[in-house]
Amino acid sequence: MDGQLQRNLGANLRKWRTKRQLSQEALADVLAVHRTYMGGIERGERNLTLRSVEQIAETLHLDPLELLRDQSSG
Amino acid sequence: MDGQLQRNLGANLRKWRTKRQLSQEALADVLAVHRTYMGGIERGERNLTLRSVEQIAETLHLDPLELLRDQSSG
Repeated sequence: MDGQLQRNLGANLRKWRTKRQLSQEALADVLAVHRTYMGGIERGERNLTLRSVEQIAETLHLDPLELLRDQSSG
Repeated sequence: MDGQLQRNLGANLRKWRTKRQLSQEALADVLAVHRTYMGGIERGERNLTLRSVEQIAETLHLDPLELLRDQSSG
């Protein structure tokens, strides 16, 4: 369980990005974070705060809870 | 939007606690946090990390996403 939310977030962001054929660097630019930090988020390595999750969701016009949900199946 | 997740968390935790007729101090003890910090969480003032939310959920045997969801209506 521990770290599951951040892993879900990373997987969902990566899926969102690749569906739009954006590079990690391009998404990092959109979110105003460094490219290496973006990589860490996508790999589920970053223990983000709730507000950071909200800011990402707001920027991408997504539901923050959807970003945290396990969408690996289906 | 900003701060909505932490406000949902606080409201849901308070609802969970009062339903069980636990004091804020008792819940703070269960979660191994200071009583004043517990108060801040319940008031939605604490910008917790994803792992902290998971730890709270795990300790209380709740779904972390349910804790973050707006359950004020219905």
